[in-house]
Amino acid sequence: MARAGVDCLLLSVGSDLPYLIGYEAMPLERLTMLVVTKDDAVLVVPELEAPRVEPGPFAIHAWGETEDAVLAVAALAGRPTVAAIGDTTWSTFLLGLLPVMADTTFIPASLIMRELRMRKDAQEIEALQAAAHAADRVLARIPSEVRFEGRTERQVARAVTDMTIEEGHETSLFWIVASGPNAASPHHEPGERVIEAGDAVVIDFGGKKDGYCSDVTRTFVVGEPSDELRKVHAIVEEAQRVGRLAATVGAPAQEVDRAARSVIDAAGFGEFFIHRLGHGIGRDGHEHPYLVEGNDQALEAGMAFSVEPGIYLPGRFGVRIEDICVLTEAGLLTLNQADRALISVE
Amino acid sequence: MARAGVDCLLLSVGSDLPYLIGYEAMPLERLTMLVVTKDDAVLVVPELEAPRVEPGPFAIHAWGETEDAVLAVAALAGRPTVAAIGDTTWSTFLLGLLPVMADTTFIPASLIMRELRMRKDAQEIEALQAAAHAADRVLARIPSEVRFEGRTERQVARAVTDMTIEEGHETSLFWIVASGPNAASPHHEPGERVIEAGDAVVIDFGGKKDGYCSDVTRTFVVGEPSDELRKVHAIVEEAQRVGRLAATVGAPAQEVDRAARSVIDAAGFGEFFIHRLGHGIGRDGHEHPYLVEGNDQALEAGMAFSVEPGIYLPGRFGVRIEDICVLTEAGLLTLNQADRALISVE
Repeated sequence: MARAGVDCLLLSVGSDLPYLIGYEAMPLERLTMLVVTKDDAVLVVPELEAPRVEPGPFAIHAWGETEDAVLAVAALAGRPTVAAIGDTTWSTFLLGLLPVMADTTFIPASLIMRELRMRKDAQEIEALQAAAHAADRVLARIPSEVRFEGRTERQVARAVTDMTIEEGHETSLFWIVASGPNAASPHHEPGERVIEAGDAVVIDFGGKKDGYCSDVTRTFVVGEPSDELRKVHAIVEEAQRVGRLAATVGAPAQEVDRAARSVIDAAGFGEFFIHRLGHGIGRDGHEHPYLVEGNDQALEAGMAFSVEPGIYLPGRFGVRIEDICVLTEAGLLTLNQADRALISVE
Repeated sequence: MARAGVDCLLLSVGSDLPYLIGYEAMPLERLTMLVVTKDDAVLVVPELEAPRVEPGPFAIHAWGETEDAVLAVAALAGRPTVAAIGDTTWSTFLLGLLPVMADTTFIPASLIMRELRMRKDAQEIEALQAAAHAADRVLARIPSEVRFEGRTERQVARAVTDMTIEEGHETSLFWIVASGPNAASPHHEPGERVIEAGDAVVIDFGGKKDGYCSDVTRTFVVGEPSDELRKVHAIVEEAQRVGRLAATVGAPAQEVDRAARSVIDAAGFGEFFIHRLGHGIGRDGHEHPYLVEGNDQALEAGMAFSVEPGIYLPGRFGVRIEDICVLTEAGLLTLNQADRALISVE
């Protein structure tokens, strides 16, 4: 905080708070906020939630139902010149703080928190690895246990989320099952479309295990793939491999995106790779660093991120392959080891 | 908006957006924001999520990975004097908008959205009723299907969440199982405590069904209750009944809280009822109106809310009873009809 010129840190809902003190704010209308100043750390928490908090190196200010929690936070903050407020804090609370802390400049807390969270220690890397392996076990079960043809995306998604829990995640975070033309929509919401023979099916799912996230994507085909699907899949697989090779200590994040993108560009599909190559991962499914054009952050040992190129042909089909990787001094560790080939299912 | 002096409405993550246009923003770092002005409505959405959006009476501005979505929003907003921004919008986006819309006063969008969302129409009441009945079916199954003694809170919570889905909710939103002394913590997180004979167990759970929430609480006892538990439960049951009787068209919200509280005060347990009587419910589990001291909003037909008094004896036990109710011109409809008695389980 001192190095960044921040006098006061204000954290509410989201992952910064459990990262620092192990307590997660309930995402409700009653404000929970950790107030960190040079001298003190106080957790402002609704009285009825105070018994949830494990004691730690901070004081607790439990507020009753008729108190104004925003005023309590402002009083504890003092008169900071610069306050960093958690990125995912509800705007309504920031709007409450602005007039009562009129001399304070607010900045997003990720400007300082990312510097801590972006560099994973050994315990965090182990947690990411355990989550990735749990996701890999789900992928391994899919061909033998999940019937695709004649079933809806929603039914397949339900099977995937059940297996996500069975394989050791505490929660299932998301479950994209995108079949046929729907696979051209990267964030497709599984629906009532009935899966047919020949469909490409993109499955992208993840959960949280011991506080850390998994996130993996493979592309399946129902029965035999068309020549075109086979060709597009091979391009994406090669782009993913080249992207992982480019992720070295010191490489700017955008260079990794460029490396993978160049493979897809060269094959003539550049305009159909409509998203960045990857995102950091940890307590949040998406966090810094982002592998995206415009981000010249140099990658460092301890950084964890996805590498996930895709090609999306509107109205026709789509392909994506994604692994979670951790950069080490010795090179890139790819945490997901499930087969990256186009996998035929029934 | 015109009546409230609002020139521009900005909605992002949360329930206001699906309430207006049926589309829910993904809670991720890429900004989705509906910009409503006097002349226009434009949904700013990440390019890779644009295929998720069903067409509606609004334009779509799909932004690519290297564009600045905050600047796009500011350009579409024009130069409003007053902009209302969704309460749950991430602060990092509001911090981005403040300097580029320096002449604009921002207020929380709930100041206008609550006026719409607080008054449910027949279709919304039907959806709340269907969700409440699904929750009641879960409660009805608990005594015969869930074993308590010797099992952990977490195991019981898992059974409740499974039944929440089985009985027709699309998602399970929360699952409080608080046993023995943990029941004195209103928002207890189910843990590894093993439930024992004689324990009071507060179960408070809910899910979402067709976009609307359920939320119900009953207190169970493993085997025979102590005389004290029986007595405290009877007081809470009476307070809950009196609270529902006080909820009439025109009554200020705080008067309903006071009516129920007076029963608990008179019995000498006032200091142990540490939360408000209730909260509105609809697309959000908690929304306006809040039944709390200090809220003199007059209740109207169409308003839906919980009535949920509790008594919490630290280190010993707790009791809460909660129903969802809808106010009509003909009186209060209590949507949950599950038995409110202290229910003995094994």
